[in-house]
Amino acid sequence: MTLVLCKTFVSQLTTPILLDPATVIANDFFFPGLNIPSNTSANKLGSSVNLVNVDKFPGLNTLGISLARIDFAPYGLNPPHTHPHGTELLVVIEGTLLVGFVTSNPNKLFTKVLNKGDVFVFPIGLIHFQFNTGETNSLAFSSLSSQNPGLITIANAVFGSNPPINPDVLIKVFQLDKSVVDYLQKQF
Amino acid sequence: MTLVLCKTFVSQLTTPILLDPATVIANDFFFPGLNIPSNTSANKLGSSVNLVNVDKFPGLNTLGISLARIDFAPYGLNPPHTHPHGTELLVVIEGTLLVGFVTSNPNKLFTKVLNKGDVFVFPIGLIHFQFNTGETNSLAFSSLSSQNPGLITIANAVFGSNPPINPDVLIKVFQLDKSVVDYLQKQF
Amino acid sequence: MTLVLCKTFVSQLTTPILLDPATVIANDFFFPGLNIPSNTSANKLGSSVNLVNVDKFPGLNTLGISLARIDFAPYGLNPPHTHPHGTELLVVIEGTLLVGFVTSNPNKLFTKVLNKGDVFVFPIGLIHFQFNTGETNSLAFSSLSSQNPGLITIANAVFGSNPPINPDVLIKVFQLDKSVVDYLQKQF
Amino acid sequence: MTLVLCKTFVSQLTTPILLDPATVIANDFFFPGLNIPSNTSANKLGSSVNLVNVDKFPGLNTLGISLARIDFAPYGLNPPHTHPHGTELLVVIEGTLLVGFVTSNPNKLFTKVLNKGDVFVFPIGLIHFQFNTGETNSLAFSSLSSQNPGLITIANAVFGSNPPINPDVLIKVFQLDKSVVDYLQKQF
Amino acid sequence: MTLVLCKTFVSQLTTPILLDPATVIANDFFFPGLNIPSNTSANKLGSSVNLVNVDKFPGLNTLGISLARIDFAPYGLNPPHTHPHGTELLVVIEGTLLVGFVTSNPNKLFTKVLNKGDVFVFPIGLIHFQFNTGETNSLAFSSLSSQNPGLITIANAVFGSNPPINPDVLIKVFQLDKSVVDYLQKQF
Amino acid sequence: MTLVLCKTFVSQLTTPILLDPATVIANDFFFPGLNIPSNTSANKLGSSVNLVNVDKFPGLNTLGISLARIDFAPYGLNPPHTHPHGTELLVVIEGTLLVGFVTSNPNKLFTKVLNKGDVFVFPIGLIHFQFNTGETNSLAFSSLSSQNPGLITIANAVFGSNPPINPDVLIKVFQLDKSVVDYLQKQF
Repeated sequence: MTLVLCKTFVSQLTTPILLDPATVIANDFFFPGLNIPSNTSANKLGSSVNLVNVDKFPGLNTLGISLARIDFAPYGLNPPHTHPHGTELLVVIEGTLLVGFVTSNPNKLFTKVLNKGDVFVFPIGLIHFQFNTGETNSLAFSSLSSQNPGLITIANAVFGSNPPINPDVLIKVFQLDKSVVDYLQKQF
Repeated sequence: MTLVLCKTFVSQLTTPILLDPATVIANDFFFPGLNIPSNTSANKLGSSVNLVNVDKFPGLNTLGISLARIDFAPYGLNPPHTHPHGTELLVVIEGTLLVGFVTSNPNKLFTKVLNKGDVFVFPIGLIHFQFNTGETNSLAFSSLSSQNPGLITIANAVFGSNPPINPDVLIKVFQLDKSVVDYLQKQF
Repeated sequence: MTLVLCKTFVSQLTTPILLDPATVIANDFFFPGLNIPSNTSANKLGSSVNLVNVDKFPGLNTLGISLARIDFAPYGLNPPHTHPHGTELLVVIEGTLLVGFVTSNPNKLFTKVLNKGDVFVFPIGLIHFQFNTGETNSLAFSSLSSQNPGLITIANAVFGSNPPINPDVLIKVFQLDKSVVDYLQKQF
Repeated sequence: MTLVLCKTFVSQLTTPILLDPATVIANDFFFPGLNIPSNTSANKLGSSVNLVNVDKFPGLNTLGISLARIDFAPYGLNPPHTHPHGTELLVVIEGTLLVGFVTSNPNKLFTKVLNKGDVFVFPIGLIHFQFNTGETNSLAFSSLSSQNPGLITIANAVFGSNPPINPDVLIKVFQLDKSVVDYLQKQF
Repeated sequence: MTLVLCKTFVSQLTTPILLDPATVIANDFFFPGLNIPSNTSANKLGSSVNLVNVDKFPGLNTLGISLARIDFAPYGLNPPHTHPHGTELLVVIEGTLLVGFVTSNPNKLFTKVLNKGDVFVFPIGLIHFQFNTGETNSLAFSSLSSQNPGLITIANAVFGSNPPINPDVLIKVFQLDKSVVDYLQKQF
Repeated sequence: MTLVLCKTFVSQLTTPILLDPATVIANDFFFPGLNIPSNTSANKLGSSVNLVNVDKFPGLNTLGISLARIDFAPYGLNPPHTHPHGTELLVVIEGTLLVGFVTSNPNKLFTKVLNKGDVFVFPIGLIHFQFNTGETNSLAFSSLSSQNPGLITIANAVFGSNPPINPDVLIKVFQLDKSVVDYLQKQF
């Protein structure tokens, strides 16, 4: 029996929950709740991402795709980050977003203001951001070309890792006083 | 210069327009207009798909993903079809959809009624459909795990190809009278 | 020890039986019996496929290929079907076959009459068929570019799934009376 | 138009002739003549391989598979060789073949005598051979998991390259007299 | 003729110079000069990377690998960066290096002091750095699992892109005064 | 938690030891000792390869790369061999090496004398060798585009497999007397 599309090769980084071909049901391919805004006031940035990857939705295993709902308060920011394992394709459902990504050397910024119905693509592995420049909430859906695209938020990874990166490294890179680096390492 | 993400290997079936790394701009990664409903009364099925693949949006080249807006009139149907090159991940924005896909031998149907905010995944290559069972319009966005997922609408391919499939083949398969096969071949 | 080619990544849809590198023998890479015709009178179509995929032949695991013997009685038909995970390359050993496949939109049919020694290729994911138009038995071997290419017989998947597809979907698609759809759903 | 499966990414080593989606016809997916035995007396080994790869059959482009007809005179030998880009799956149509392949370190030989209807798989990149141990002709078809699997005949590559490998290398490897190495380099 | 390994599919982001199979010579697979230290005093960081990718060395085309020589002055730093298309495998030839990488959420730092002969692996897409903590020069070779791994130096991409990222984005992310962000944007 | 890069899909031929994302530490990405020459007098060839693949270094799992240190005594030879699963990229650290590889039919040799700092690439699956033509030791590092590239030493595989290849096969291939084949089979 060549039945089910789940108990198969693992194309990404964590260990998904494997579905059993003998007992899999329609609900295994179903994930509810993306109509519900997530809380954009839980952090100072005013944005919130609900990423439905294979860790949350085992039916995506081997299928090479995932989906995120992104909510923005006015002036909310989804800060510079990368997805090491997937390209992101975003469509604006409501509001206005300033978006951009930066290429490899040389570091060229491709940036655009998006409105309702606009689509923008952020190529795999590049640093990108989305910023609500409007005075109302914004809403976007992003699909990603991996069941587990990963997420590296730049500021958190650089200044907020556990354990912290040696401050001498950061002082040298950013040509900042030790006090500013200390301040930044406390922020994150 | 390792700059641009476009003039590269072609991962799918047609020949995309290659962007020139020296002149590429932000607009090359941008596609507008998915806020506009497509016309669901252009055919008898009451649905319409606006698929933004690499043929329409050259910036998707090499990036392994595409996006579709699907509009449904009341009782509108996106008929049984396959995408030979990609998995489809659908999220309902408005309305109610009965969806399903059929697996390989044995032919098991996985089916579900979806409402606003619900997500469903249709694995690569399998026959699937979406049917608006409500009395109002429905709207969904689907992302696909390929820059060019392809689309084979089953009834059209079987009964409406050009040139037509030998009627003896279809009579034998469906155990139907020649008159019914003739009727079906005229439909499509 | 880098010895054996079997206990490795699973490239397809089911869970192959993994061979143990320590105990694997030549017989694990061997599969007998493709000289024996299969029974073409077990169904009304007059054809029979013996597909040797990784489920039957665990030694194919990770190797990206499989093989089928296809027997046709006079006027026997291998009905329209797809392999979601592999291209099929067919060679005629005996007899005459009318073959064809239908491409994505638009639905163009590529068809040809094949005789002994002729080769034809059916690209991955496309609907195709083989029909013995001669008055003697035909025999073909097909290789497929996957250890587990999958098989979706169109008529069975559309009209014979378990549970059945909602008849309203099929009535709408095929513009047929409910009685004809009922008839078809009983056939399969 | 997502029509044709040919003008696309080149997955292997040479530059295939690209088909034009606008003018492609059924004959582009067709290759005749594998019913005709090839000449097994053109060399001393008594075997002959007719490999239908993408160089001969442009329709295979992007499809990941190719096919060979192999004829053997009595005691004919298809000598030790590798396919650097594909696994080989062989089926015996007529006669008897002694076949084998050798794994990576340690060098373990997996060998078997095959008769009509027997299938054997030679994993990608491994050294393998087929030897007709019978007194009648043998015939096999082999499919390969690449549109262009490549072929490296071991003895020819080692002793018959152009220009020749430095004899000191071969003397050291095989611990043979210079005269024997000279003899071997003249053979090939 | 299945001869040459170069005029083939392009697996990465730029357009390599394609070699002509008819005229390719040994020098096409050869690249000299990695014995020569690069100048570590050309920038304030005290390190210099000579990355031999397919742009410099066309013979790497389709082969999935590249190589870098990295020189460090005392206290020289190869600052936090990512390779969006390749894993890096580093071996220390001379000196002492403090190295580290940060994983996806949560942001965990894996760090180690390396000495001569030590090997460390930096997985694809993750932020990593190498810091010479000794008072003598250090030297390392790094291989990367792509013909064109790409390079995104974090500080340069975030603070030094052209055009610059909107300062409001950076102020919001780092919770820094506008003057500090202005200072940083001038640095890079 | 999308944390760790190890417990994932197995891209090669053996079964790597899977790291546990919950307990993985920096040492799992670390491998020491490549500063130590290996013993080049353990065999008659005067060379020794220390290949650090995923079997020795589980942290390489899924990362698509491995590394080897190769030591050569004066006139030491790394004999003709293939890596069925990876391209090799070699850099000379000390000494002089005559290197070469042979392509598919026709068998063309690409050969070059390398000195300190020279890089040469040996494409996946092709027969290649490295020979120290100098009177001093040589040292090279080779990276390979696979976590488990495999190694098939031609002479050992052909003449030294266990069990041995049928001598009739070898006599026929090499057109040698049985006594010479017997001699060669005893050598390996």
